[in-house]
Amino acid sequence: MIESHDTTRNTALSTRLLARSNRITLTSGLAPNYLQANLIILPSRFAFDFLLLCQRNPVPCPLLASSRIPGSSTALKSHLPGVPDAAIASSLDLRTDAPLYMVYHDGELIQSHCPDIVGEWTDDHVAFLIGCSYSFERALTAAGLSPRHTVMGRNVPMYETNMPLCAAGVFTGGTYVVSMRPYRKADVERVRELTRPFVSTHGEPVAWGWDAVERLGIKDINAPEFGDAPLGLDGGFFSAPEQDEEIVPVFWGCGVTPQLAVMKAELPGRVMGHAPGHMLVLDVMEDDIVEKI
Amino acid sequence: MIESHDTTRNTALSTRLLARSNRITLTSGLAPNYLQANLIILPSRFAFDFLLLCQRNPVPCPLLASSRIPGSSTALKSHLPGVPDAAIASSLDLRTDAPLYMVYHDGELIQSHCPDIVGEWTDDHVAFLIGCSYSFERALTAAGLSPRHTVMGRNVPMYETNMPLCAAGVFTGGTYVVSMRPYRKADVERVRELTRPFVSTHGEPVAWGWDAVERLGIKDINAPEFGDAPLGLDGGFFSAPEQDEEIVPVFWGCGVTPQLAVMKAELPGRVMGHAPGHMLVLDVMEDDIVEKI
Repeated sequence: MIESHDTTRNTALSTRLLARSNRITLTSGLAPNYLQANLIILPSRFAFDFLLLCQRNPVPCPLLASSRIPGSSTALKSHLPGVPDAAIASSLDLRTDAPLYMVYHDGELIQSHCPDIVGEWTDDHVAFLIGCSYSFERALTAAGLSPRHTVMGRNVPMYETNMPLCAAGVFTGGTYVVSMRPYRKADVERVRELTRPFVSTHGEPVAWGWDAVERLGIKDINAPEFGDAPLGLDGGFFSAPEQDEEIVPVFWGCGVTPQLAVMKAELPGRVMGHAPGHMLVLDVMEDDIVEKI
Repeated sequence: MIESHDTTRNTALSTRLLARSNRITLTSGLAPNYLQANLIILPSRFAFDFLLLCQRNPVPCPLLASSRIPGSSTALKSHLPGVPDAAIASSLDLRTDAPLYMVYHDGELIQSHCPDIVGEWTDDHVAFLIGCSYSFERALTAAGLSPRHTVMGRNVPMYETNMPLCAAGVFTGGTYVVSMRPYRKADVERVRELTRPFVSTHGEPVAWGWDAVERLGIKDINAPEFGDAPLGLDGGFFSAPEQDEEIVPVFWGCGVTPQLAVMKAELPGRVMGHAPGHMLVLDVMEDDIVEKI
């Protein structure tokens, strides 16, 4: 079914099949042009509150799709205008098709980076697919503004912040998770413009500059809670000022936010998500969802 | 045209006509059952960025309607699903039909509480109507949880906070404005439930409890930036603990947020808004927009 190991030639489905057979891990740069999704899977009694959480916090939680009925790990309902249900992901199995998963019980992480959740999924679980900022990285690269972690072959750094989510039902006390990409200060406005149209995949940054680190309550820029530590261009720590240029951190909303919200809310029962950076690849093309301006 | 001075019998149009002839000020409790709207009026070149600001921050900035074309102060485009353009407000003139207005120039307030903006409006201005939390006060009152300011015949207190808005184009550095209603701690969950369905008019609270005051960066609960100071039940300062019951402040997103965002962004040119608490009354009924749960 897979004709080549050259990942640039993989289709979305063949990438999902590679994930299903546990032959890939990080998905950044895989299946270019295709959307990637964050995953959160909840007991059905929390589904309405989670929908409301997404509606009230669309920047960190842009909803792409959800289980068509509770218990279905294969059939999705599209939340993308103009994209039919069947166009989201063919031959899908949400229990296996992300490369790696996280499992929570009563708000605590009990399994990290496990290869599937076949044994965890029940007839009462509902899955939600949330947009991922990988989807605008190709646009940045095409403009000569390649995200540093893609150039260095690393996972994007992701941080817990103190930026509050708007509460929704059981989801109280949550805060944003953000992804970070370093850019020259002079390029920040261009980076904002390039990512602005990607409204379904976090859109433009929520904060930028060294002063944003403290404002967001990030304790140590070199110790992200998820993903890989950022590196300076010399391979050492990422810090300002770097070489001759003024490089600043730029922060985007991140789809790992719901997993932190589950922990902050001490949500009872069994919850699952993808392992940060190990995304579900969809059949939807990036060009299908970018907002024309 | 107006048959009675009994405000409970006013229709939405007759309330607008009273505002037009400057015979009313605060609109809380007027034209019960009808939606009231916050107003922000911008030069057309900022209209797209403002739409994006609403899209990214739907809790403080729930968009109800906007000028159908730049320069039109009478014809609106509806942003409410299922509500036709013509059903928003009949015989409307946005330059006169809010009781009082604020005028900004280059991000600074230059006129406060003026009766109309006929002399300020240009062919290049675009108006946006934003939901107002007055719209859920009737539901609270019906449940025996009357907001204190309505009982005391005062304007609701509104506060600047440090809770960041998601940036959108020229709108950077903005923060939430919140309205506050005191409730018994034991009633907060019921208050959250009652206001949750009002997604077009700020929905459930964003924060509650005395610890939220510091967390939101509110300097003095007795000195709101907009509206009237809150009172204790004895008519003195509002503070904890109050009498025998544990009363806590409960905070909702507020449609004055865009006016603060205009100032924070130092938006060039002439901008207008309503005076906080002096709202535009619409023909849309509250029951038309409440989300059925």
